[in-house]
Amino acid sequence: MTTLTDRFETDYLLETTADPERVAETMAGEQSSGTFVAVPGETAALKERSAARVIRCEVVASDLPQSLPSAAVDPSRPASRARVTLSWPLANIGPSLPNLLATIAGNLFELRQVSGLRIEAIRLPRAFAEAYPGPSFGVEGTRRLSGVEHGPVIGTIIKPSVGFGPDETADLVATLCAAGIDFVKDDELQSDGPACPFDARVDAVMRVVNDHADRTGKKVMVAFNLTGEIDQMRRRHDHVLAAGGTCVMASINSVGIAGMVALARHGGLPIHAHRNGWGSLSRHPALGWSYPAWNALWRLAGADHTHVNGLANKFAEEDASVIASARSCFEPFVEGASMVAMPVFSSGQTVRQVHGTFAALGRADLIHASGGGILAHPGGPAAGVGALRRAWAAAMAGEALEDAAREDRALADAMAIGA
Amino acid sequence: MTTLTDRFETDYLLETTADPERVAETMAGEQSSGTFVAVPGETAALKERSAARVIRCEVVASDLPQSLPSAAVDPSRPASRARVTLSWPLANIGPSLPNLLATIAGNLFELRQVSGLRIEAIRLPRAFAEAYPGPSFGVEGTRRLSGVEHGPVIGTIIKPSVGFGPDETADLVATLCAAGIDFVKDDELQSDGPACPFDARVDAVMRVVNDHADRTGKKVMVAFNLTGEIDQMRRRHDHVLAAGGTCVMASINSVGIAGMVALARHGGLPIHAHRNGWGSLSRHPALGWSYPAWNALWRLAGADHTHVNGLANKFAEEDASVIASARSCFEPFVEGASMVAMPVFSSGQTVRQVHGTFAALGRADLIHASGGGILAHPGGPAAGVGALRRAWAAAMAGEALEDAAREDRALADAMAIGA
Repeated sequence: MTTLTDRFETDYLLETTADPERVAETMAGEQSSGTFVAVPGETAALKERSAARVIRCEVVASDLPQSLPSAAVDPSRPASRARVTLSWPLANIGPSLPNLLATIAGNLFELRQVSGLRIEAIRLPRAFAEAYPGPSFGVEGTRRLSGVEHGPVIGTIIKPSVGFGPDETADLVATLCAAGIDFVKDDELQSDGPACPFDARVDAVMRVVNDHADRTGKKVMVAFNLTGEIDQMRRRHDHVLAAGGTCVMASINSVGIAGMVALARHGGLPIHAHRNGWGSLSRHPALGWSYPAWNALWRLAGADHTHVNGLANKFAEEDASVIASARSCFEPFVEGASMVAMPVFSSGQTVRQVHGTFAALGRADLIHASGGGILAHPGGPAAGVGALRRAWAAAMAGEALEDAAREDRALADAMAIGA
Repeated sequence: MTTLTDRFETDYLLETTADPERVAETMAGEQSSGTFVAVPGETAALKERSAARVIRCEVVASDLPQSLPSAAVDPSRPASRARVTLSWPLANIGPSLPNLLATIAGNLFELRQVSGLRIEAIRLPRAFAEAYPGPSFGVEGTRRLSGVEHGPVIGTIIKPSVGFGPDETADLVATLCAAGIDFVKDDELQSDGPACPFDARVDAVMRVVNDHADRTGKKVMVAFNLTGEIDQMRRRHDHVLAAGGTCVMASINSVGIAGMVALARHGGLPIHAHRNGWGSLSRHPALGWSYPAWNALWRLAGADHTHVNGLANKFAEEDASVIASARSCFEPFVEGASMVAMPVFSSGQTVRQVHGTFAALGRADLIHASGGGILAHPGGPAAGVGALRRAWAAAMAGEALEDAAREDRALADAMAIGA
């Protein structure tokens, strides 16, 4: 990274039917000291000290159909795409995440000159690392609290998403503990519904988890979904901590940046950040946010675990995008800080994705969450967990999945259901 | 509205290459008790009590190109569009806004079967009105505090967005007070930057506003942008209140739902809700959220004023969309509650949009914010404000703009610059 000190930068993929250089200048003006007409009190010196600058504008494609409609643009005009970087003085906003968001995104997506705009990366000066908690636990803290010293943290999700009461949830967690799981998460649909109240669920589940820990020395990490209002989240967090729990989960897009920061500043537990709703910001490739850029905001705000979908997932996302998201969790974006969050792979995950995931990521500092792959394994959940562990051991040792499966019945069975 | 009592509903515009009925069922399953594979403990009774239901699926178009790419779908397959309504038991989540968001949006945008998905409306049972503040001031409170008994609240924006310090801001506000303005708002780029700290800005501006009120009896409403973290927002809110201020402003998408609710529950002042960033959720017509649906969440959370862009605006949005957004501010969506927020028209607004706005909305319960139209009027800001007032008086009296301009020099001049 270049030295930023007193400026911050954002990379955009811009699409426009106009001259990209001029549109980039309009973007910079719109998001800093520009006005459409001169107004009283405005001076050149005043504009200069607060102006955003275009520091890159590189056309990468042309003669494209327009991705997004605009009320005032002839839809038959060809568009071009450019990689644009804007730079702002930190003094415009100070190190404030909510105001960073208003500045780098703001009204830009609505500009009529824009037929596509996607935020691809952000780079921040050190002051942001001093102002925000970042991931207080990350990989190391998660390994410490879950007792998984190396290799992936093997996890699963409480399913069905809703319908279970506290006791039914605890029964399932008991099964999972007995199966040797490392990590369990609530579904994002279950926070504090009247049919499964948060406190009662935590109490019932932690009795099971603590009993298991007393017997075996292994405390399974359960990410309790505390998504809610600020005071609710703080109170629920404290309830989990008091019950001996080791993780809480929040739906980032439901809670918002200010909510996430409030939770992280309050917190003494790793925060499992669920990205549901993310598709609305990303599903069109020329609009919104790349996940590495969006996720950077939440890592800075305090996310310790961050969802990245999984290879060959059940959703629309391509594998290359999944891997780019996962890799970005380990890439710095704030000067002088690493802000490493632990990627969470999930969605249709079985033993079949293990080798590809390890090969693409080059490390096993991750949570690998498998629902059906564990709970629906024909040999039972213990065989499901065992098969996943065996697959990871093979991948990390450079052994082919098929070779490993020849000596491992659970793995062979898992391959059959994952086929 | 139908009686909901113990269920909530969401309307979607779905686009898919598959059978819309089946995709609607998948959506309902994914966001309630569905699982991709049967898991231990799952029973029919348990699924039934928590299942979301498809209560409408009406195909409205077919043989369309796909709007959004999907990793697993042949891009040449034709898509159809359907209006789909899903209904959930309230007991799944209780009356919780963050969890409502996770439930009705959640992972749905990412489904591979979906080549387009947009949330168009939400309908909520009474429990939500009991659980959330809603707009505590709305139209009536804003009229009371600004002293504008009828007709539009005429407003403007501090420009340049950034660059002014507290004293320069106060000087501009003094000019605007003298010009007879009703309402002034900070720009969304200026909250608490080191070059224009919030408290110092409030103190300097409120000295001017209070002096003007002491002299004239008219207290101009200034929406101070307090966007930030929860504790910062609460503290800044109290600072405005103590200084005699009558409004605060927050960028909703920067703050998030939990932040907005915390501010509204704390608050004793109208909240001016700025929607910057909104384009990322709306700019593609087949993806994301319609503004009436998105705005409903924020009205319930406590927004008193809500941005709707303006007719013939400088952005990409079409007039019909602007008007639909503005009208929706007066339409109920929670059983037994009105939740009226005051629409804010802005962006390139001059006297030329007044008649069209009034004709389309059928009322003047709105804030009409004009930047250049006031500050760059050749006769000075007082002439700019006067011209807007005269245009509104004409529109509300059924008089043509051109007729009114014949007797009003300021209006005639304003029409010349707005041309």
